[in-house]
Amino acid sequence: MNKNLTLVCLIYLACLVWPTLSVAQQRPIPVVSPEILADNSVIFRLRAPNAKSVRLIGTWLKDLRNTVEVPRNDSTLFEVKVGPLPADMYEYRFIVDGIPLLDPSNNVVTRDGSIFENRLILPGAQTQLYDVQAVPHGTLSAVWYPSPTIGMDRRMEIYTPPGYEKSGKKYPVLYLFHGGGGDEEGWISRGRTNYILDNLIAAGKALPVIVVMTNGVPNVAAAPGERPAFAKATAGEPVGIQSMTTGKFETTLINDVIPYVEANYRVLADPAHRAIAGLSMGGYHTQQITNANPGTFGYIGVMSMGVFDGPMARNYNKEEHIKQLQALKQANPKLYWIACGKDDFLYEGVTRLRALYDQIGLSYTYRESEGGHTWVNWRLYLAELAPMLFR
Amino acid sequence: MNKNLTLVCLIYLACLVWPTLSVAQQRPIPVVSPEILADNSVIFRLRAPNAKSVRLIGTWLKDLRNTVEVPRNDSTLFEVKVGPLPADMYEYRFIVDGIPLLDPSNNVVTRDGSIFENRLILPGAQTQLYDVQAVPHGTLSAVWYPSPTIGMDRRMEIYTPPGYEKSGKKYPVLYLFHGGGGDEEGWISRGRTNYILDNLIAAGKALPVIVVMTNGVPNVAAAPGERPAFAKATAGEPVGIQSMTTGKFETTLINDVIPYVEANYRVLADPAHRAIAGLSMGGYHTQQITNANPGTFGYIGVMSMGVFDGPMARNYNKEEHIKQLQALKQANPKLYWIACGKDDFLYEGVTRLRALYDQIGLSYTYRESEGGHTWVNWRLYLAELAPMLFR
Repeated sequence: MNKNLTLVCLIYLACLVWPTLSVAQQRPIPVVSPEILADNSVIFRLRAPNAKSVRLIGTWLKDLRNTVEVPRNDSTLFEVKVGPLPADMYEYRFIVDGIPLLDPSNNVVTRDGSIFENRLILPGAQTQLYDVQAVPHGTLSAVWYPSPTIGMDRRMEIYTPPGYEKSGKKYPVLYLFHGGGGDEEGWISRGRTNYILDNLIAAGKALPVIVVMTNGVPNVAAAPGERPAFAKATAGEPVGIQSMTTGKFETTLINDVIPYVEANYRVLADPAHRAIAGLSMGGYHTQQITNANPGTFGYIGVMSMGVFDGPMARNYNKEEHIKQLQALKQANPKLYWIACGKDDFLYEGVTRLRALYDQIGLSYTYRESEGGHTWVNWRLYLAELAPMLFR
Repeated sequence: MNKNLTLVCLIYLACLVWPTLSVAQQRPIPVVSPEILADNSVIFRLRAPNAKSVRLIGTWLKDLRNTVEVPRNDSTLFEVKVGPLPADMYEYRFIVDGIPLLDPSNNVVTRDGSIFENRLILPGAQTQLYDVQAVPHGTLSAVWYPSPTIGMDRRMEIYTPPGYEKSGKKYPVLYLFHGGGGDEEGWISRGRTNYILDNLIAAGKALPVIVVMTNGVPNVAAAPGERPAFAKATAGEPVGIQSMTTGKFETTLINDVIPYVEANYRVLADPAHRAIAGLSMGGYHTQQITNANPGTFGYIGVMSMGVFDGPMARNYNKEEHIKQLQALKQANPKLYWIACGKDDFLYEGVTRLRALYDQIGLSYTYRESEGGHTWVNWRLYLAELAPMLFR
């Protein structure tokens, strides 16, 4: 009996907590963090006996450089109360003596590129849209496809709506792009694309749609943990966000991704059922692709990105830009949606984009939200854009 | 021009490093960690000016409680050289003043339940099997299925082999279970199941197979980030590993999971094409399911788990166990594979299991490896088991 009890305890320790054993010994009192109060205030706690300084960064902050000081509450515990905050989904993490630290008490971690942060979800109408509800769920697949344009197989995430497998029907497609530093998992881990679509479709607010989430960095195959471990970028190739203006992603989207999706999924393969949208760098990609391919996409969404004509925009040519926009105006997409937060640092570029479109007479719908360049806005934008598609 | 340059710089900062801005300011010199040397020694580095103690824990350690001291190298940098290590894939993290910390210089993070650790991959024959190679890749899908037995929709990961979508063929299935504290993503994030199968299939060493990775904790729907945020376990329901012996997972596997897979995938739905395997708690589940359903599975793999007859094993009945094993012997599965590491703390239970099987005359193949109760072994076991299936 004792031997068995020991065995049980060992399994419990080994499977659940072995790597934190030495840590656990120093943390006799369990820490609850984040604790959500009735008024949507939130208490964050961190047990860090030796820390000098604990700070908190979270996507509810207007300026993410203004981190929150977490004062020492007693000899081992740091604690701060934030809010009340609007009911929403946020990301946060601690900074302990200058080092970013995930909240050890929160086992929900989200990732955008190399940025790991805990999820905070405050109950309310908006978060119901982002949360997993008791509704039919679509399937999310990580798919490898050949990219002859780039010269390697690459990875994308594809959401197929509930019922896709058995319906025999064809569906419209939304091509959805992440921002700089991100990858094909950003719209999943942070963006909650699959759950937002599940919930909107179940409520009859969005039509069933296939969502294709690509990796927008052409010199890598996939997200960090999913690419060959010892692959090196070709010498001289621009890496990361430096690759943004090489035009390679735009080419592979048109030449490789769309043909693959239309050949391998039951897709309504016409402009009236083809939508494209992206955030930040993905908003740049969206502009580049739709400018160069007027008439290919019936629905266009540009999130948190305006005119990009700086020195990094190697081939930027204002005359060509205007010419393309005139052709796009002729093609008359059913929706050209531009969204930006009031505090977005790219606000001025978005204003210039709208001025240019006004000047040309290219129709667009403009959505200005609160807040800045964060996933709080991008989730909101997807939740607002999806219901407008394919109507 | 200057405005554009500012814009470019802002985008770069905002998209890539904004949350670490205050951190970056304190880290003028980039830290390389882990640095892999030619002889497969590894240098781990952490810049932590205020830390008193930095330790390192990694799955190359024989006893995971013996963490490695990382000495202070200069005023801000902690550094330690480990190895040379056998070429393999490992998990590791730092412990700074008692708090677990991911390596800020390594953007590959893996998860098993609530345990987050960085990946370390050392080049060699074994890691080629675990790495992403230029071979055809299968598709990995997160699928929600109804579980009337448990009373909720639940999530599982399904690997379909390269070519599945277009072949029109039917495939054998491996049902693969995680350990205590884990979930349906463990065999992906840590286990590398999809890449191991891709590589074995490409080399002609394994037959194309569908792999179904369930969530073995019946009181939750899915992995932490994928379950309803405000869902509570039913009052009085055993949670986490406490749910291991309720029998609910076993029932849902037989009543819900297998019928769903066989109705929704092109499956060879007979015992000769149905395999089952699991690690630790999943090895317990594998035993329970195959003992209670002799003749249902042609191939059985029990990893790092022996007899489990302690007080937590509520309904354990040795007589019934023996009776079941005799029926299983009659059913004569094509393979009963048992694997355990020499340093596994469950080694003694595995020895007792083998003795019991010997006594009954139930044939099994035993594989004893080096090392203990870690993913280093479970990846190895999957890579060895898969080639034996469906031959």
